[in-house]
Amino acid sequence: MIDAREFIRMKRERGAHTSEALRGFIDAYMRDEVRDYQVSAWLMAAFLNGLDAGETGALTRAFIDSGRTFDWTPLGRPSADKHSTGGVGDKISLILAPLVAACGVLVPMVSGRGLGHTGGTLDKLEAIPGFRTRLSPEAMRGQLDRLGIVMVGQGPDLAPADGRLYALRDVTSTVEFEPFIVSSIVSKKIAEGAAALVYDVKCGGGAFMKTRESAVRLARRLVATTRAFDRRASALVTDMSQPLGEACGNALEVRESLDVLAGAGPADVRALTLDLAAEMLLMAGVGPTLEAARVRAAHALDSGDARRRFVALVEAQGGDPAAIETPEKLPQAPQRVDVPAPRAGVIAAIDTFRLGDLVVDIGGGRRSKEDDVDPRVGVIVRRRIGDRVAAGETLAELHLAAANDRAVSEAVACFEIADGAVEGPALVLERIDEAAL
Amino acid sequence: MIDAREFIRMKRERGAHTSEALRGFIDAYMRDEVRDYQVSAWLMAAFLNGLDAGETGALTRAFIDSGRTFDWTPLGRPSADKHSTGGVGDKISLILAPLVAACGVLVPMVSGRGLGHTGGTLDKLEAIPGFRTRLSPEAMRGQLDRLGIVMVGQGPDLAPADGRLYALRDVTSTVEFEPFIVSSIVSKKIAEGAAALVYDVKCGGGAFMKTRESAVRLARRLVATTRAFDRRASALVTDMSQPLGEACGNALEVRESLDVLAGAGPADVRALTLDLAAEMLLMAGVGPTLEAARVRAAHALDSGDARRRFVALVEAQGGDPAAIETPEKLPQAPQRVDVPAPRAGVIAAIDTFRLGDLVVDIGGGRRSKEDDVDPRVGVIVRRRIGDRVAAGETLAELHLAAANDRAVSEAVACFEIADGAVEGPALVLERIDEAAL
Repeated sequence: MIDAREFIRMKRERGAHTSEALRGFIDAYMRDEVRDYQVSAWLMAAFLNGLDAGETGALTRAFIDSGRTFDWTPLGRPSADKHSTGGVGDKISLILAPLVAACGVLVPMVSGRGLGHTGGTLDKLEAIPGFRTRLSPEAMRGQLDRLGIVMVGQGPDLAPADGRLYALRDVTSTVEFEPFIVSSIVSKKIAEGAAALVYDVKCGGGAFMKTRESAVRLARRLVATTRAFDRRASALVTDMSQPLGEACGNALEVRESLDVLAGAGPADVRALTLDLAAEMLLMAGVGPTLEAARVRAAHALDSGDARRRFVALVEAQGGDPAAIETPEKLPQAPQRVDVPAPRAGVIAAIDTFRLGDLVVDIGGGRRSKEDDVDPRVGVIVRRRIGDRVAAGETLAELHLAAANDRAVSEAVACFEIADGAVEGPALVLERIDEAAL
Repeated sequence: MIDAREFIRMKRERGAHTSEALRGFIDAYMRDEVRDYQVSAWLMAAFLNGLDAGETGALTRAFIDSGRTFDWTPLGRPSADKHSTGGVGDKISLILAPLVAACGVLVPMVSGRGLGHTGGTLDKLEAIPGFRTRLSPEAMRGQLDRLGIVMVGQGPDLAPADGRLYALRDVTSTVEFEPFIVSSIVSKKIAEGAAALVYDVKCGGGAFMKTRESAVRLARRLVATTRAFDRRASALVTDMSQPLGEACGNALEVRESLDVLAGAGPADVRALTLDLAAEMLLMAGVGPTLEAARVRAAHALDSGDARRRFVALVEAQGGDPAAIETPEKLPQAPQRVDVPAPRAGVIAAIDTFRLGDLVVDIGGGRRSKEDDVDPRVGVIVRRRIGDRVAAGETLAELHLAAANDRAVSEAVACFEIADGAVEGPALVLERIDEAAL
């Protein structure tokens, strides 16, 4: 029987918890022997006084063991997955997962919904009419064995302790604390059963991590914590000072993903997909070097193998294949409005957080978990940092459910136009692998 | 409508709350718009990041305004009360309240029950058969007007916000924080309506404040916070390195109080009662100087006026007067056991916390609020710090509900016997009045 008061007092006094004590506290909470108000006092004490690597690992372990875990080793093939910390226009999973599966690596991808200014993979998939994101464990196993890929939502039985703690963190202002972020992400990815994990840690104005330093620190903690569970892991710290690709909004992003799967689409989306695919293939043992793995990934994309695997995935999970073959059949917004440049010059910056927030405002995202999402709406960003524009030229295209002048002026305000030359940001800022720890 | 998340975040980031924000948070909690788990996260943030004097005052104000407040000015006489921070053997209120009332000052005393190693005035009063500690506001007013004294328990309508916060502090390890302690004490005393307040801040091993520094700081904060509500206030910092008087245990302490009211009893109990009475009388305007007020108080004690007022109080509140006239009629423990000195020497120290805890162990106090208290049991401490003892001489007398060898050895262990001379501690360590702030 855990003494919750003593446990809280220990963190209040800057002590370090043993793994057993941390496990006992979380387990007792899941049995309702420790109460919400005790956990939230502990959350604040930990937030202010810190958790070390050992405590973060123990918390992660307690989260994992609070629910179901998957083990795909009986399927006899390597497995890998990717997690992104969230950004604006980040549709990489839709291309990456079928691409890696097409290279013979199992991809058991469990994703979340969008909240706040960032989108979620589940919402994008559900923009495809009929696509089901809830599968039974048996159906997941069968499809993974048959197709090598499954893309589902996190059921309530995966790391449920993390779910309960996250809900408390949300209402007690204890969200933005690295050890909590790490244990929340890693526990779900470990429970999901992939043997190798690559983390895409977004960095910049449109990401949770605003500075390169904080993003690199998070990337290192994610890789180290994952390694402690005997999984392969690496991380890329990537730019989120402007949207990834052009499309921001669920159906628009599916469409852009289909473009990239067809060998076209924005260069940054293609490049980052191949970089992340190379990480996954290398760790899964496919391709002896990162360079060889990247070549292999590019082949899978250009040969149409990745696209075919995506179509098979959509069909397997109940999605309408016609919406993939003829993207005009995806949900479309009734109103399209151009966002004109107010003056000539060079795009010096894009307020990506504000742009993501604008997508939420026009119905494409959620303020709170209960909100509905309109798959049709969004923004197509036509100009990027460093691009030269003439006055009146189109900066972006708004896809709206109804006329909305405020949205247009808000979109204009997201672009900073300056004189002189501006260099666009690098896409991949840093790579953290196991050797770098 | 308060944004609880933003309020919590502000204290997490070491910000200072405005009075309006603090009031809004507490009020919203009392309307159940802010939840327990949010308040407990804030309690921990405040505990770790601090509350300044302004925030402590605003919290006190919010507590007061959450419930009923009394105003005795229509009775047309000065009023005063005393609060002790709690110790072992502290029965002062039982003597002090009728004494001050006998000097013409209204004493509307609202007290608490004992919890942990310290006793509570209510429990002592209830050791008198029939004594009622719950009175309606109308009955309080009538008795105060007629007798000048009322001694009751804190009803649920007096500073209810403090009651709810205290319950949360208790289970989240956020009790021992000076601004919380101050606002909890002062809010109840202000709501109770006395125009002048003296605080007896206990200091030493048997008190919550272990060091003179922490006790003096608390005393200053209590006086300053009370002054901010336009009441007169002073404080004495007094010794709790050994029990106050000899008797520890509810009926035993009533009996010792009757001894003091009869002009006898332990010298320290009499002295501290007179010192506290002088503070109350001076602030109430009775006696132009502290010295004159103390002479007046001593006269009220030695003339029997104080004792007669106590008898009238007991009768008015339903207590059996025979138990006062013939103390043998008070509840008595069936077993009395002497605690012998294990060796000859001088009492160098008394582990007063442990002794208070022993009284709880044998049934005389509470571990949790729901526990019942046995009024009969306790300890009579026969030797004090500095006293010389022979081997086998009686150190203390245990009053037990049943034979208990462990209690005897535990009592022996509370006394530290050394060689050479030891000086007894001073009783009053410091006096803080308004001029000292």
